[in-house]
Amino acid sequence: MRTENPKKTSPAGIPAGVIRRLPLYHRYLSDLAQREVERVSSRELAARMKMSASQLRQDLSWFGSFGQQGYGYRVDDLLTAVNRILGLNTTNRMVLIGAGYLGRALINYENFYRKGFLLTAIFDHDPQKIGKSINGLVVKDVAELGDFLHEQSVEIGIITVPDFAAQEIADLLVEGGVKGIWNFAPVSLKVPDDVCVEHVHISESLMVLSFKINQRASARDHG
Amino acid sequence: MRTENPKKTSPAGIPAGVIRRLPLYHRYLSDLAQREVERVSSRELAARMKMSASQLRQDLSWFGSFGQQGYGYRVDDLLTAVNRILGLNTTNRMVLIGAGYLGRALINYENFYRKGFLLTAIFDHDPQKIGKSINGLVVKDVAELGDFLHEQSVEIGIITVPDFAAQEIADLLVEGGVKGIWNFAPVSLKVPDDVCVEHVHISESLMVLSFKINQRASARDHG
Repeated sequence: MRTENPKKTSPAGIPAGVIRRLPLYHRYLSDLAQREVERVSSRELAARMKMSASQLRQDLSWFGSFGQQGYGYRVDDLLTAVNRILGLNTTNRMVLIGAGYLGRALINYENFYRKGFLLTAIFDHDPQKIGKSINGLVVKDVAELGDFLHEQSVEIGIITVPDFAAQEIADLLVEGGVKGIWNFAPVSLKVPDDVCVEHVHISESLMVLSFKINQRASARDHG
Repeated sequence: MRTENPKKTSPAGIPAGVIRRLPLYHRYLSDLAQREVERVSSRELAARMKMSASQLRQDLSWFGSFGQQGYGYRVDDLLTAVNRILGLNTTNRMVLIGAGYLGRALINYENFYRKGFLLTAIFDHDPQKIGKSINGLVVKDVAELGDFLHEQSVEIGIITVPDFAAQEIADLLVEGGVKGIWNFAPVSLKVPDDVCVEHVHISESLMVLSFKINQRASARDHG
């Protein structure tokens, strides 16, 4: 069974904080590349990331050797490195199970397709949904999931089913050889060590907002 | 304009890591309370939280004085404290703008209503959606949002509109006096200092998953 690394570092030793900032680097560098900016100084990029230039240089040292004193970083070199680290230089094939509102929201989220992710199939157990087309993909019967995974190479399974069904789907995904599960069901999944799980805690983020509001209110009252 | 606190602590000085763990404490303690467990040892709670007992005690010291050497913590005392810190001891009134798939997924997410959050109105600009009922609430015209907020007390605005419309909605929410914005649009919002924003970065979490898969694969190849 999967256990959290107590040191909160990745297999390659990159600290969790750096990992969490990787998508931000990706976003800012993609934005610069799109605007055909060729070079960016560590000061400028650090300001965008709301961190110090020295912290930024420390982050980037995990990705390789970049930049030249006084010349800044080449945007495309950095972006290529960030893409490689994020695994976005190859296509990640995905299946989605659970074509409810959340599932549909993800299916329609075109941003993914620009970022190295390809949704190859959608599954549901509801006869009302099976056979219907969503964004060009016909919804398949979840009973066919096992066979599909044995025939096709799929890296990522997206779980958007209700919590009580999530573990059963996770077991099917694991058996089918996926490398990672993107889990939106509000439940912890048991998977073998070699399968990665990224859990999207939607309601926890609302609690954090409530906390911030509450703290700010008490700071006002007592401050 | 809002700026990130460089020390990554809340107004009351609680470290960001502790804040991120608060919803987890809430989840585990609610679970224990539901099973009518009266006391929990720091060792047991720490094991659930996948942290050391001493780190747990350090976390809890931010919330007040709890526990008695050798007797563990009273579950209901701890839960009450966590609820108070999270602002869940009062009802947070919310409006949602954008009744697309993601908006509907949130509207139908009943967990919120058990946790101190109350959705009071839904807005959209689409004439096809305005007037329709979703989960017992009639979708209102977004043109009425400003008036609604001036008449009703609302703490939180949920933004599930496309990115190009998000800032405009945020401005209306701020003008209407909300204290916090729960933003699902993939865009940074500019709001005054006294309004909290919690941004749910859905696609960033997918990138982190891709990163983990990629790291694990290269650890296998080179390990």
